[in-house]
This record gives sequence, structure tokens and C-alpha cells, in this order.
Amino acid sequence: MPRNTKGTRRERELVTLLDALGMALMRAPASGSSTDRPLPDVLAGNGGVFVAIEAKASAGQPIYLDEEEVEALEYFAENFGARALVGVRFDAKHGDPNYGTDDSGWRFLAPETLYRTDGGNYRVKKETAYAEGMTLAEIASGVVA
Amino acid sequence: MPRNTKGTRRERELVTLLDALGMALMRAPASGSSTDRPLPDVLAGNGGVFVAIEAKASAGQPIYLDEEEVEALEYFAENFGARALVGVRFDAKHGDPNYGTDDSGWRFLAPETLYRTDGGNYRVKKETAYAEGMTLAEIASGVVA
Repeated sequence: MPRNTKGTRRERELVTLLDALGMALMRAPASGSSTDRPLPDVLAGNGGVFVAIEAKASAGQPIYLDEEEVEALEYFAENFGARALVGVRFDAKHGDPNYGTDDSGWRFLAPETLYRTDGGNYRVKKETAYAEGMTLAEIASGVVA
Repeated sequence: MPRNTKGTRRERELVTLLDALGMALMRAPASGSSTDRPLPDVLAGNGGVFVAIEAKASAGQPIYLDEEEVEALEYFAENFGARALVGVRFDAKHGDPNYGTDDSGWRFLAPETLYRTDGGNYRVKKETAYAEGMTLAEIASGVVA
């Protein structure tokens, strides 16, 4: 499956999961935002917690984000008044101990905690995501607010 | 010009104006929001003020909103944690005294202040919009927060 198609499908799953947790949310339009400013993939709130999410999915290989992409996320989030989060989702086999109790597979990391490559970009490994990432429930409950 | 095209153009203008006031914002995608929930046209924030806007433009005739449309706006706004606002924009001739000092032509009203028709829908007249509506600057400055 092309990477872009898979990314879109996973992003839709994320939206459904946030919705199920009682968060109101908006996905960025594919184009035509009417300003030249880059947008996060998802903007969500629940009356107390506001999050701007850049979402990426991978079967298992590390996920890379451009410096510009992360800076744009942080810029938007700060201006809007939301918490910037990088959402990552890796495939895992059933019973994978890394999966933990949140079986959505999504984990969320603050941009400033991400590993930076020598080139200035950002990298998230699957192991790091499970070890350090926040779960959907933690986000919605305001742990990261 | 078809109504829909004009509405889209006006909505883009609104987005540009909010951006110029320092608000970060996202327009609802035309489709594919990934949940069945209706979305406001624009979601904007500036760190202190969060607004969900349903935007409508008219040359001069009263603007009507369906009951369902307004209820959906209020529902989203409450869940997200934003202020629900109906944004209306009427054409005005240069020098029109109703125009006031905010020459964007946009005015914003809280849904609960709108006139309800016998059929249960909502109506905004141009005169009412200029007399009672809030300006862009008032929204961004937090007067309505």
C-alpha cells in the first residue's frame, strides 16, 4: 500500500479514537487552507486540553520528520494555544509486550523530546515511542496539558 | 456568481483577516473529516481565545441558518472548548454608515442571541448584524471569550 494512503488511513483511525475519547477535533484540509501557513494534521480539544498533532505511521521502521515540519507544528500550536504533539503509530504483533495496555498503537511525544539527527531532522524509533510516548488516554485526560 | 463560490471566497477572506489579527486557525475540510460529526467552518485560537465560527455571506438579503446547523456549531464548540459564533458578512457601499469602523464587513453573533423564525431556524438581518454583532478585533482581543 502506498505510504500516503496508509498514512491517511491511520490518521482517520486516530481521529476516530480521539472522538471516542470525547474530544472534538478537526483534520486539516488536504489543501486550500487559505493561508500559506502549514497546519497540523489534527487539532483537538475537550474543553480543558487542546492539542495540535502531527501524525505519522510506520510498519516498524523509524519515523523521520523534517525540521521544518516540526517547527511549523510548534509555531501553530503556540499561536493557537494548543500543546504540540507528534503522534506516531507502529504496527505491532498481537501480544507484543511493547504494545502495553493501549492497543491503539498510537503514542505521542512532545517535539522537544525527540531525537535529532545530525542533519537537524527528527527521528522516532518504535522502542522509544513505546517507552516514552504518551497514550491517547493520557492526552485526553489532560496529563499533558 | 454562484452562492457557493461567493461563500467560499468570503470565507477565505475571513481566514486571512483572522490570520492578520494573529490568530492561528484551521478551516474545515470540504469532506473527509473522518467522523460523521459536522464541523464549524473555521476554528481559531490565539492562546487565550478559542472560537468556532459558522460563516455566511450575503449581498444584503437576510441570512438564514438551519436549526441543525446552529445546534451542530454549539455542540462542537462546547465539546472542543471554544466559543460558538455565527459570522456574517454583508456587502456595503463605501461610506455606508452602518459599516462602522470595521470595514471588513464581518460581524459575529452568539447563536443564542439570533432571531428564531416560526419554523425554528435562525435569521440574521444586515441591520441587526451591524447593530449587535461583534467585530473581528473584538473577537481577537478576547472581548467575547
